[in-house]
Amino acid sequence: MILDQSYHHSAILRLGKSGIGRGRPDIVHFCLLLALGAPLNSDNQLTCFVHSRDDHVITIDPRARLPRNTDRFTALIEQLYQTSVVPSTGPPLMKLRRESLKDLLNKISPDSIVALTSVGSPKPMEVVAAGLQEAKRPVLLVGGFPVGHFSDQTMKMASGKFRIDRRRLEAWTVVGRAIYDYEKAIGTERF
Amino acid sequence: MILDQSYHHSAILRLGKSGIGRGRPDIVHFCLLLALGAPLNSDNQLTCFVHSRDDHVITIDPRARLPRNTDRFTALIEQLYQTSVVPSTGPPLMKLRRESLKDLLNKISPDSIVALTSVGSPKPMEVVAAGLQEAKRPVLLVGGFPVGHFSDQTMKMASGKFRIDRRRLEAWTVVGRAIYDYEKAIGTERF
Repeated sequence: MILDQSYHHSAILRLGKSGIGRGRPDIVHFCLLLALGAPLNSDNQLTCFVHSRDDHVITIDPRARLPRNTDRFTALIEQLYQTSVVPSTGPPLMKLRRESLKDLLNKISPDSIVALTSVGSPKPMEVVAAGLQEAKRPVLLVGGFPVGHFSDQTMKMASGKFRIDRRRLEAWTVVGRAIYDYEKAIGTERF
Repeated sequence: MILDQSYHHSAILRLGKSGIGRGRPDIVHFCLLLALGAPLNSDNQLTCFVHSRDDHVITIDPRARLPRNTDRFTALIEQLYQTSVVPSTGPPLMKLRRESLKDLLNKISPDSIVALTSVGSPKPMEVVAAGLQEAKRPVLLVGGFPVGHFSDQTMKMASGKFRIDRRRLEAWTVVGRAIYDYEKAIGTERF
């Protein structure tokens, strides 16, 4: 799953005095908490990436236990921009590198790329999940934008573009529902 | 939906210097963000309550737009303990009163009370949701405890006690999945 933060407009926060533009760390935080806490992740069936608006990619160790406090998580992201890896000693939990979404996708080399976007064609998430389940290496793109949409370039990379509800859902709601429906589609054992 | 914070043991935080015990505001925060952002809530089919360990009940206006930052949300909860209602002017978004879970349930007068707990009998959430859908005034109890379980007293009030996964899921994961499955059970229109 790739959370894309590349094209939002109104709520660009600034990293203290360093002036590095970043997205909405609260959106990333909630999305990652939901994703990393999902049975799909405990079963090692999920890898999460965050693509930031300034073309950085954050990779998250599936075993990472993120801080529960958004400000502490944000501090970790700020540290990541300084040191490229956190924590500074021991096994890395998050890594940051300069990379475009296109290069990241080339590296993953998926056989299906689905973008969830309110400008996509309407399709219930469980139907989207059934499609993903047929792929060997599916990638799901979720927009972490407070406003705005995927860029045209990103939209071109996606083989399917769907909206799963007529309402504009929060990114974390989309992440939670997508993962749950995908677990059901692949038959994740619950008991 | 009632989020119960009454019986946790190890992670009792303190309200600044006032010394009022409270639960884990981050758990409440994430759960409420997920619940209030759900289509079920936009359709006016959901009411959220938080029951705290010191027998306070917080009612949340379904139209409340909560702060996205946990510390700001926590500050709001602290204010709530001082003033019983926030914001201090305009239509109230959250209200707090002294009330036991039993009294709250008596007032709601539900025809079905289901508690989700890791010590319940295993049942997939969509099956639990199908049961709730048959009730006229169902109440779902979710534990917001970092450790520990519902009290024996609470367990006795529930007509059904189920666990929806063999893993111990985070409270917000449970809230997100329960609401989504319930939406599907009652046929919430997505498009």
